[in-house]
Amino acid sequence: MPESDPRAVTKLPFWVDVAQRAEAAGFDGLFLGDVLTLQAGADKHLSDAMDPIVIMSALAAVTSRIGLIATASTSFDHPFHLARRFACLDHISGGRAGWNIVTSSNALEARNFGLDAMPDHAERYARAADAVDACLALWDSWDADAKIADQQSGQYLDPAKIRRVDHQGPYVRTAGPLNVPRPPKGRPVLAQAGSSEAGRAFAAARADIVFTVQSGLAEAQAFYRDMKARAVQAGRNPSELCIMPGIVPIAAATKDEAEARLAELNSFAVLDHLIAKGSEFLATDLSKLDLDAPLPRGLIDQAGNQASQSRVAVLVGIAEREKLTVRQLLARLASGRGHLLAVGTGAEIADVMEEWLDAGAADGFNVMCPVLPGDIQRFADYVMPVLRERGLTPS
Amino acid sequence: MPESDPRAVTKLPFWVDVAQRAEAAGFDGLFLGDVLTLQAGADKHLSDAMDPIVIMSALAAVTSRIGLIATASTSFDHPFHLARRFACLDHISGGRAGWNIVTSSNALEARNFGLDAMPDHAERYARAADAVDACLALWDSWDADAKIADQQSGQYLDPAKIRRVDHQGPYVRTAGPLNVPRPPKGRPVLAQAGSSEAGRAFAAARADIVFTVQSGLAEAQAFYRDMKARAVQAGRNPSELCIMPGIVPIAAATKDEAEARLAELNSFAVLDHLIAKGSEFLATDLSKLDLDAPLPRGLIDQAGNQASQSRVAVLVGIAEREKLTVRQLLARLASGRGHLLAVGTGAEIADVMEEWLDAGAADGFNVMCPVLPGDIQRFADYVMPVLRERGLTPS
Repeated sequence: MPESDPRAVTKLPFWVDVAQRAEAAGFDGLFLGDVLTLQAGADKHLSDAMDPIVIMSALAAVTSRIGLIATASTSFDHPFHLARRFACLDHISGGRAGWNIVTSSNALEARNFGLDAMPDHAERYARAADAVDACLALWDSWDADAKIADQQSGQYLDPAKIRRVDHQGPYVRTAGPLNVPRPPKGRPVLAQAGSSEAGRAFAAARADIVFTVQSGLAEAQAFYRDMKARAVQAGRNPSELCIMPGIVPIAAATKDEAEARLAELNSFAVLDHLIAKGSEFLATDLSKLDLDAPLPRGLIDQAGNQASQSRVAVLVGIAEREKLTVRQLLARLASGRGHLLAVGTGAEIADVMEEWLDAGAADGFNVMCPVLPGDIQRFADYVMPVLRERGLTPS
Repeated sequence: MPESDPRAVTKLPFWVDVAQRAEAAGFDGLFLGDVLTLQAGADKHLSDAMDPIVIMSALAAVTSRIGLIATASTSFDHPFHLARRFACLDHISGGRAGWNIVTSSNALEARNFGLDAMPDHAERYARAADAVDACLALWDSWDADAKIADQQSGQYLDPAKIRRVDHQGPYVRTAGPLNVPRPPKGRPVLAQAGSSEAGRAFAAARADIVFTVQSGLAEAQAFYRDMKARAVQAGRNPSELCIMPGIVPIAAATKDEAEARLAELNSFAVLDHLIAKGSEFLATDLSKLDLDAPLPRGLIDQAGNQASQSRVAVLVGIAEREKLTVRQLLARLASGRGHLLAVGTGAEIADVMEEWLDAGAADGFNVMCPVLPGDIQRFADYVMPVLRERGLTPS
């Protein structure tokens, strides 16, 4: 967009601006995704990605209230490092750390870490469960009052309140204890976004927040009910599992202005890039298809191991439900990546959010602003006052 | 010390205060060591350690000039993660990142990462060389002008200026390229502190800074000459390899006041803890020795794999040179950990530093303030003005 700084991603002032606007607007948290490779679009649309733990650590120093949720993969990092980094982020932020747990699915990521291919989906989730269980044990290896720090006696830590972990899982081992005190909130908030069978089971047992791609209300309600039922089956209070669909807001003073902003945004989409991105998402070479014909059937099975199964299902679902051609699906991908797209005034966007909250489709939203920081500020200016008026923002 | 906050280590304001005082004083860099386990002293003197990359990332946001040198081990982290994190720290700090490369030597660290014991010294250094070479290739996988970011054409990156790495080492493999642009300074500053044969060879070939434990001028000169000769042999300009012995400054307005501060500091040392710490450093159970007898011979050979060889050599060297009993050596360990101890007025401490610089024993110093932030401020107040007057500080 003309308003964007195309070099912003490596610059700290950009991230500080985003975080401080989000905090001032009253957002609960800032969430940063990740991928451990150059993102392959068409060649000239490769894109870079900063390490979320570095960015969030820096933002801890210049924010005071907002949650800081960093993505990290369980497939390439040892749980001792993961548990320690998130514990440290929780300490320096005063209990504001969150971990978005991913298993990575991209073959390019595997090759960056010396593997020839990603382990299959089931094995990735088995490893994730093992790694997170090890992290939970490490965070729990210190009692909250293990640090005595008594200057008179000279006693710093109480060894009786710090325990070895001796985690011996199928994938990872760690002796422990952690070398960092128990995090201020006991552990970071855990977020997860897998919507496959394995992903749902994992999230129902361990996550605080589930990020999910949902573009239709009925599907979102079904997902919500399924996840809450799984939480109950896992012996949890379902209110402990917070379901947060993504929403892509295009907010303006009038509906016409919002539509014009969406049209302007879409006008910058490059077909080559969309084809490459869609091909990556669906693990299918879309360039060989007739763009003006419907999406072929059977893509979910073709996608197999190397794609995010939930993303494939959502995109195929949108295409089938709305009877979209490949080209039309790519346009949807450009503006909303398959997420709920809400275009309009603050009241109109708040209506959609309220409908989903009331209908049992969401406990909250992952607000995915298409242009940063502009669309955060628009959300703050147009949508937040309406949500606040209606009592829909946290106190 | 009475002035200390014994709970400071997990609190961000403490680190910010240290960094801002050091920056204001004119230090070139801030260096944070690390160990990947609870530090085993006597049981009640266990100590915790925050992740240096988290701390340094936070400090990048609240400092503007000072270098940020974080320790990270090559034994438990993949080079893709290491290269990416330090590249990101370099970006967000505007080219101020440094990496103190360690191989880890403690068996407790190995067990936290699922190993039964540390690989032997030679293998650890072979892996370090492999990992650092992979990082150098990853940092070099982007040309400085690979990011075009042209809003008119829509071209973001130039794929012709970003290359695969295909590093296939004996220990680590990575395909690359890195998913972060070339760091502002090309790569972070590399520091290393190994003083064994393998450590010296490694540092001479790859490091910008060598941290070293030297308590005597003659030994320091010999080390300095040896390292510069090795740099030449490695085909480098010896001035590219900066030798920085540690110096522990106790600065005050008068010599008497400085001596009194040292005595007060030593009065808080706990014999049990010193014995445990000395036992860890020397990989020998000192509690079984006669504390008032000389240190037994042959300790270097006994220490073997699980200790830092350079630390053993320095401590044994001090004991032999100064004919210290075990108890006296432990007292030296308390106040200076074997490093050059400089106690006195600003001019007296500056004299020692100038002597070492002039005598070809140091290119600069790793100033190891015993009490933070107090001794940074004392160094700033008493020593820096004298160094500045003598033209010994960087411009």
